[in-house]
Amino acid sequence: MIEGIVPSEIREGPAAIRATLSSALPDARRVAAAWRATGVGRVFVIGNGTSYHSCLASAALYRRHAAADDPAVIPLTAADFRIYRPALGPGDAIVGISSSGEFHDVVGVAEEVRGRTPFAAIVHVPGSTLTHLASDVILSAGGPSTVPVMTKTFSATLVATELLLLELLGSARAAPAERDIAAAADAAEVAIAAAEPLVPALANALADAAHLFVVGGGLAYPAALEAALKLKEMALVHAEGTETWEMTSGAATMLGPDAVVLALAPDGPARPAMADLLRHAAAWGSRVIEVGPSRLVEGSALLPLPVGAVEDQAPLTAVPPVALLAFALARRRGANPDRPDWIERYHSQGLTHILGAGKAEAS
Amino acid sequence: MIEGIVPSEIREGPAAIRATLSSALPDARRVAAAWRATGVGRVFVIGNGTSYHSCLASAALYRRHAAADDPAVIPLTAADFRIYRPALGPGDAIVGISSSGEFHDVVGVAEEVRGRTPFAAIVHVPGSTLTHLASDVILSAGGPSTVPVMTKTFSATLVATELLLLELLGSARAAPAERDIAAAADAAEVAIAAAEPLVPALANALADAAHLFVVGGGLAYPAALEAALKLKEMALVHAEGTETWEMTSGAATMLGPDAVVLALAPDGPARPAMADLLRHAAAWGSRVIEVGPSRLVEGSALLPLPVGAVEDQAPLTAVPPVALLAFALARRRGANPDRPDWIERYHSQGLTHILGAGKAEAS
Repeated sequence: MIEGIVPSEIREGPAAIRATLSSALPDARRVAAAWRATGVGRVFVIGNGTSYHSCLASAALYRRHAAADDPAVIPLTAADFRIYRPALGPGDAIVGISSSGEFHDVVGVAEEVRGRTPFAAIVHVPGSTLTHLASDVILSAGGPSTVPVMTKTFSATLVATELLLLELLGSARAAPAERDIAAAADAAEVAIAAAEPLVPALANALADAAHLFVVGGGLAYPAALEAALKLKEMALVHAEGTETWEMTSGAATMLGPDAVVLALAPDGPARPAMADLLRHAAAWGSRVIEVGPSRLVEGSALLPLPVGAVEDQAPLTAVPPVALLAFALARRRGANPDRPDWIERYHSQGLTHILGAGKAEAS
Repeated sequence: MIEGIVPSEIREGPAAIRATLSSALPDARRVAAAWRATGVGRVFVIGNGTSYHSCLASAALYRRHAAADDPAVIPLTAADFRIYRPALGPGDAIVGISSSGEFHDVVGVAEEVRGRTPFAAIVHVPGSTLTHLASDVILSAGGPSTVPVMTKTFSATLVATELLLLELLGSARAAPAERDIAAAADAAEVAIAAAEPLVPALANALADAAHLFVVGGGLAYPAALEAALKLKEMALVHAEGTETWEMTSGAATMLGPDAVVLALAPDGPARPAMADLLRHAAAWGSRVIEVGPSRLVEGSALLPLPVGAVEDQAPLTAVPPVALLAFALARRRGANPDRPDWIERYHSQGLTHILGAGKAEAS
């Protein structure tokens, strides 16, 4: 068992998914029904960093289930939406994701549209600033976070966002996807337990890696962005998240023995394309790590996902094993993600919203 | 003057913008008017790599000018749109960007929706496969490309796409943005001429860089993605494109003396945030290169943009100087972007659509 607060929170992730499914669903239903009743036609989903990855993932999941005449869901970074505000009308609504409820651009938008545009805040911290400004609040669950690197709060706020968007389709159409989310909690638990004993050796093997690529298709693409961010925040290594097909026709030009490719490859429509990419990457001498039900290329390292872990839920199932790896790699390199040095940097940049940072200071 | 086919095509970019403005506008007007007349409500803009960056840039530019009741424009990668096809209805239309007119996923979508959903192809090569499949074709101009790395065809196809989307707002509302595009051709010419004598020394200084970040806000963000791709394709260096505010609260955790930050910083709402980021990056020991009207931090290298080069046109003005730098860096490292080694890799992956590759082989 890997010691540390971040690993504990990673292990608490599946329970946070279940808790959010149960506690947030009534609010998601209520808000979605109200929005449907007023004829909402465009829903902007905004957030920053981890929360932006939730915007991308929830919008993609929604697109899988929506009909052509359902509302259009548009994910944007919080800064882009705030600074280059699109014109808003009576058919518009906003979903703002901020675990801490304090991220400045999301809070800023909530203030600026108050009383004019419906704004549902997806927040993990009850009583935070955003909960007072938003017309609607959906709290994610699973207990407080006490570290600045988000893992379980990513899972919990993503699920809360997915519930709200899916319920825009009505509860009957949302039900199958909601069952998939419940199954993802179980799959994440299996994946985390399987990763624990494998991660230390893998961290040793990656100790000298200067930069790497994290790759995925479909909803494994926002999962790759999030996994890459965990590697940056914890292991302080330059990890870039990219889409499987985009990688193949772009960055693959520069793959060689110095490169590491970390593949998020659950069962799904992207897996054949991933197999092609990884075969080439391995032939060009790159090291390959896979997160999937089984190896696509011989000689790769595997962090196993249970069979049946669906690609639509890759952010919930494939990210936690990589987060564990990022933590182990950080410790191997002498960093402490439970109290990262960059907290001071973060504050020096005028940023203060990081969830759990205050508590980590106090603990 | 930097010798090579790619540098020649970079210098031809501004003329390609002007040629496209003049030759594509009538078609853009005609298609947009027809779509408006049939009540199009959602426009999906799809492409891969460079063309995907055009999707992001053109959708962002459109959003700056659109009212709440104008059609929603949604950019997606060609693979995502094809493999996870959203449900399409009578209010939908598709814009597919492929300079060669041969990229498989764009061609695949055009085949699959033929006769059911309006599909406007933005293509640089007359007579290519896509031109036979699409219900509407808008050709970008500026003469053929004879190298596999797109520079002038990026500018030309982006302008053609922007014209089509802007004309969805009607010609009167499109006019100011169209004037900005014309001005961007002049600004790009100035920026390219200014970069020529500066780029060789800068390439020498970057010869040992293992990986770097290319950063921008607003439309300088898709410009950063494109500039990073040019660095990957030509200099074979790991360059990641990222948004200014996302970089600040994410990847900035890992900036240090090994890092290089290449800032696309035209005048505009993102410039103050860029100044903050660069001051911190410099204080943490990172090397800084700026593309902007003047230095934001002391001691940085500057590739100058003319004053008045607007952020909305950053993909047309800020990318070419970086493309010149990427070419010079490639030559410094012994690579030849006019005939890159990766063409064989590309074909081995089953990809064949790269524009100019055949002609480069023949020349």
